[in-house]
Amino acid sequence: MNAIGIDIGGTKIAGAVVNESGEILAEDRVPTQAGDSEAIIDAVVTMVERLSVGYDIVAAGVAAPGFIDANQSTVYYTPNISWRNEPLRARLLDRLNLDITIDNDANAAGWAEYRFGAGRDVSDMTVLTIGTGVGGAIVTQGRLFRGGYGAGAELGHLRVVPEGLPCGCGARGCIEQYGSGRALLRMANEIADVGGIGLALADARREHGALDGTIVGELIAQGDPGAVHALQQLGFWLGQACASLSAVLDPQRFVFGGGVAVAGELLLGPIREAYRQNLPARGYHPEPEFVIAELVNDAGVVGAADLARIHHRGR
Amino acid sequence: MNAIGIDIGGTKIAGAVVNESGEILAEDRVPTQAGDSEAIIDAVVTMVERLSVGYDIVAAGVAAPGFIDANQSTVYYTPNISWRNEPLRARLLDRLNLDITIDNDANAAGWAEYRFGAGRDVSDMTVLTIGTGVGGAIVTQGRLFRGGYGAGAELGHLRVVPEGLPCGCGARGCIEQYGSGRALLRMANEIADVGGIGLALADARREHGALDGTIVGELIAQGDPGAVHALQQLGFWLGQACASLSAVLDPQRFVFGGGVAVAGELLLGPIREAYRQNLPARGYHPEPEFVIAELVNDAGVVGAADLARIHHRGR
Repeated sequence: MNAIGIDIGGTKIAGAVVNESGEILAEDRVPTQAGDSEAIIDAVVTMVERLSVGYDIVAAGVAAPGFIDANQSTVYYTPNISWRNEPLRARLLDRLNLDITIDNDANAAGWAEYRFGAGRDVSDMTVLTIGTGVGGAIVTQGRLFRGGYGAGAELGHLRVVPEGLPCGCGARGCIEQYGSGRALLRMANEIADVGGIGLALADARREHGALDGTIVGELIAQGDPGAVHALQQLGFWLGQACASLSAVLDPQRFVFGGGVAVAGELLLGPIREAYRQNLPARGYHPEPEFVIAELVNDAGVVGAADLARIHHRGR
Repeated sequence: MNAIGIDIGGTKIAGAVVNESGEILAEDRVPTQAGDSEAIIDAVVTMVERLSVGYDIVAAGVAAPGFIDANQSTVYYTPNISWRNEPLRARLLDRLNLDITIDNDANAAGWAEYRFGAGRDVSDMTVLTIGTGVGGAIVTQGRLFRGGYGAGAELGHLRVVPEGLPCGCGARGCIEQYGSGRALLRMANEIADVGGIGLALADARREHGALDGTIVGELIAQGDPGAVHALQQLGFWLGQACASLSAVLDPQRFVFGGGVAVAGELLLGPIREAYRQNLPARGYHPEPEFVIAELVNDAGVVGAADLARIHHRGR
């Protein structure tokens, strides 16, 4: 039972034929015509048709950023694409002779980790995707947690500071402003400003005109004290957020994905330390593990395909 | 299919025979011999035997404070009773010829609200019980959310202030320190200290020696501006916590139980206002309702009985 997974990103639409073991049999990708929602629907239809050639396909799952309703049918809202209450599933069903489901992209990626990656041997896991922002996914008792309106697991918008930094979501103090790739760059710039351990960051900023994720990531990999300190600050906030999330969700495992998570133990160490300092009722029940995601690039398409297959089976 | 529900509280053990509609057919209660765990087990066994006389009983559910494992069998930890990794289910099964399950008391009470009370027409709800502390329960897609180790939904330990007030759990800044009955008394005392709108609170404190929940509750009911202001502060913090919880759990409804919730709209108004000011991505997806719990006193026994019946059915 092969299924197709499509992941609509801000810059590219990725698609794949995925088998029941989560293996990718064929792949495709095209640039996203951001802002042109009709062109995006056309591109998804064409990609599904193209990937179907030569494969027996039972269903297709489409992952998109933003809020998807709990019935996996309607996009309430997506940033960049301008979908508002778009009946995406019905639109695609009109043009494709396949069972179609829609899911939030972070949920699809988290589901892939649960099924085939860093969470495959637990029943309850919480995924934090540390990219430009902070995404989230929750699996509980082997099921994807979607929430009552499909908008759950928006873990980047857990508040960690009352009246804290303004967030793109309109609220303030969200963990996205303290634990994301963008926050890492802000912290790295602050450290570069003060000299001392920030000298290498300041040099790099002068040389390249501005710091970006690649530059800071390289300095972290080299063990530069300023860049590592910025990452530790990130871990400090993420560990605090995990303590709150543990009180609410009690996962057996926290999984960290996204570009910043390639730092591995350099990120996990400070997270574990801050977690232990802030965990309520420490020692009275088992504690979760903290690990890095395994399916970095393909998680979205693999998860979307698997969720579509499961939906098709009527589970 | 009647079931027995037992709720082990700090001062009393309550028990009832409950039918499938959540109706109580018979009741019993005895004082809790706090600290004497063997006496408590004896009391539970006797209560189940007594309540069984004359009724056809399929199962018994026991609700207790603290951490219960995900298999509803073992008490990791209870405050006041000194159970540590106590195999309570096995102990009771040894002495009772009935299917037995164990659940956290706040989870049992929340489940009763979902089945027979303020949440009976939704699939996803979050319960905050505002008593001396802040308890929690989560229902998602019609299932009780227990977490990976059974210690989920400890919503009182969501952090709302970094390095905030110390909490009994060992962490700092938990919503329990800003949104509980104990927090209400602290705020009422602070308002009494400064005069102005606090004059009636100060007078009551002088007259009675100290403020307690009954005194402050009466002043709230009379519309005293100082007492109402203290309640509004509580609502301000609870609304902020609900904004974070909404990002994570996305419930269709928040239900408020516990002694402080008898204030009704005087509490819900400030909660809704703070929620709206702090909700991430407001307007992009449906918003939850905020309501008061309906089964105040019996929720624990009714929920414990119903969870035991469901477990017995093998659902």
